[in-house]
Amino acid sequence: MENFQFYSPTEFIFGKSSESECGKYVKKYGGTKVLVHYGTGSAVRSGLIERVKASLEAENISCVLLGGVQPNPRDTKVYEGIELCRREQVDFILSVGGGSCIDSAKAIAAGVMYDGDFWELYSGKAVVEKALPLGTVLTIAAAGSEGSGASVITKENGMLKRDTSSDLLRPRFSILDPELTETLSPYQTACGATDIMAHVFERYFTNTTEVEITDRLCEAVLLTMIKETPRVIADPHNYQARANIMWAGTVAHNDIVGVGRSQDWNSHAIEHELSGLYDCAHGAGLAVIMPAWMEYVYKHNVMRFAQTAVRIWGCEMNFENPEETALKGIRRFRKFLSEIGMPINFEQLGAREEDIPELVRKFGLGDGRTGGFVSLSSEDISNIYKIAAKAEV
Amino acid sequence: MENFQFYSPTEFIFGKSSESECGKYVKKYGGTKVLVHYGTGSAVRSGLIERVKASLEAENISCVLLGGVQPNPRDTKVYEGIELCRREQVDFILSVGGGSCIDSAKAIAAGVMYDGDFWELYSGKAVVEKALPLGTVLTIAAAGSEGSGASVITKENGMLKRDTSSDLLRPRFSILDPELTETLSPYQTACGATDIMAHVFERYFTNTTEVEITDRLCEAVLLTMIKETPRVIADPHNYQARANIMWAGTVAHNDIVGVGRSQDWNSHAIEHELSGLYDCAHGAGLAVIMPAWMEYVYKHNVMRFAQTAVRIWGCEMNFENPEETALKGIRRFRKFLSEIGMPINFEQLGAREEDIPELVRKFGLGDGRTGGFVSLSSEDISNIYKIAAKAEV
Repeated sequence: MENFQFYSPTEFIFGKSSESECGKYVKKYGGTKVLVHYGTGSAVRSGLIERVKASLEAENISCVLLGGVQPNPRDTKVYEGIELCRREQVDFILSVGGGSCIDSAKAIAAGVMYDGDFWELYSGKAVVEKALPLGTVLTIAAAGSEGSGASVITKENGMLKRDTSSDLLRPRFSILDPELTETLSPYQTACGATDIMAHVFERYFTNTTEVEITDRLCEAVLLTMIKETPRVIADPHNYQARANIMWAGTVAHNDIVGVGRSQDWNSHAIEHELSGLYDCAHGAGLAVIMPAWMEYVYKHNVMRFAQTAVRIWGCEMNFENPEETALKGIRRFRKFLSEIGMPINFEQLGAREEDIPELVRKFGLGDGRTGGFVSLSSEDISNIYKIAAKAEV
Repeated sequence: MENFQFYSPTEFIFGKSSESECGKYVKKYGGTKVLVHYGTGSAVRSGLIERVKASLEAENISCVLLGGVQPNPRDTKVYEGIELCRREQVDFILSVGGGSCIDSAKAIAAGVMYDGDFWELYSGKAVVEKALPLGTVLTIAAAGSEGSGASVITKENGMLKRDTSSDLLRPRFSILDPELTETLSPYQTACGATDIMAHVFERYFTNTTEVEITDRLCEAVLLTMIKETPRVIADPHNYQARANIMWAGTVAHNDIVGVGRSQDWNSHAIEHELSGLYDCAHGAGLAVIMPAWMEYVYKHNVMRFAQTAVRIWGCEMNFENPEETALKGIRRFRKFLSEIGMPINFEQLGAREEDIPELVRKFGLGDGRTGGFVSLSSEDISNIYKIAAKAEV
């Protein structure tokens, strides 16, 4: 096990009607003038924004509203938020939405306190040193941003997706009401589930040995997702399944399932170019990329993929031919994704094989190599896109 | 799943030589005058206290020392600490030791800020409303106190064991260096492992259904302990096994494996009377009590115990007779405890069957009943002690 630091100070308030407490928690964490940040309509249509406002008013907290955050949140909205917060002297940001909305709120929280173009915090030119406090009311189980210090923003000019991370961007509190996710379509639900599973897999494939506790915690989240996701697809109003998935999504990404070892985020990075270019859902892109990545790299550690197949997918171990077991696990994963309604190749995703050179170019590796479980070159990335393009169940 | 709040703000610094950073973290969390609180010798003999002092001095932080905390920490030491902190105007408490030392530090942290006898915070007369900040350098994987807000203190007059709990008592930081645990005897190590497993089992046996994520996380910690504990007993210098156990011990008790459902702490309470009366190790007492409790209550939910047997102990499910599987799992648990060197009955523990009426009297239930997975009367508790008294592998 490698040395590590683990810090997850966010206070989670979980359960039915918990959003009615958001005013109380904003007050607890010192907010007096709040930016309520939200998406493109459903939070308003469902009456959620009105309920949030009422909860703030009950605590005598004033607020300004900024909606319209898109999936794959844009820098343009962040600039708008920063200006609004400065003008209105906002001292707390409350995100009411999913991962895109939280990521946008984090960018605003850091940008308001940054003396320059906030994009420098994402392009690698500067690091986050100050940020406004923020809280979240989560409406989709997926990104895990409600319990993490990470944020991904897309620069509209060129559709460049870049990320930053800081403990200062961890929400002070996150309110998780599984009922709020019941209105999501099966497709949105499945995209979220895929993202959650990807967050675990990217931590599961490691070159650090003997980290049993982290392995087992990863498997715990994945087994939960495999059980609960089909239940929600079959019945969107299954509260218990929604609740298990929602909490699994948070546990999957506050790094409790990742500590003490190297991780591999290449699938996420390879996917980012897809959602960057086609503006598809991140989870859908991951469903296409992640099994392809697995097929491309599994020979690096056949026994680890065999373990995955046996412990997670319930395959029987083929002791004479572990490779067969390893491949069976990957096939089960793709089949699972297909069964919950995810695309599994370029055509189903709406991507085009002829764009692969462009995707690889935008990935920006040039003659370099990635880190991770298996170090990849531009050619490797191109090959992974090619496998993904033609994949079949 | 029931509504819940989850809050674990402690910053964990994990790994080899991490104790050399304690000065840096005391400073980060605002300490300027520190009480260094420790046990009965080994922390001094090993040079650890000197290293801690050097780390504080390097940050220009002054300190006063208070050693001598005993296992099953006493109120008398707490009074001594409170007086010392007030006299020396201490503003931060650093515990260097195991769970007893941390629990004593928590009592001092709360007691210093309490306008009355600190025991009232443990006897149920008052709740913790203020506390000095505290940090820990952990030397044994067991109690989980390094990541919890709970504390247990024994009142010397009558050997009464009582506890309190508050988010204000959660350590600001906890430093976990598995190397510091390598000097523990196999017996101490096994006691710690038993305590860790008990913390999970007390959360595993619940009457709340459909909390798959919490079930699976519980199983993750238990599977880790079952793999790693025998490795450490066989080789006390197995760093990787020590590291897995140490982190498992923290995860087992910050409530990440307990949220969203009812829990059962009757085994802990029943054991407390044993270590209260005989001053035995808490883990050793649990090894005697917990399987006995399981045998007494398993009929309340045979399938849950069968699940335990199959998922945790690797038993084959007997579909024609699930009860047989349930009982096999309990027997495996007791055998495991015996194999790692734990006592499994009164004689091995140094307890006496004729004291059972006295143990039940001190439990203090009278004509009342406990809560939990199975509600227990005084007679039930007496019966559990009787099963424990005569248990065999």
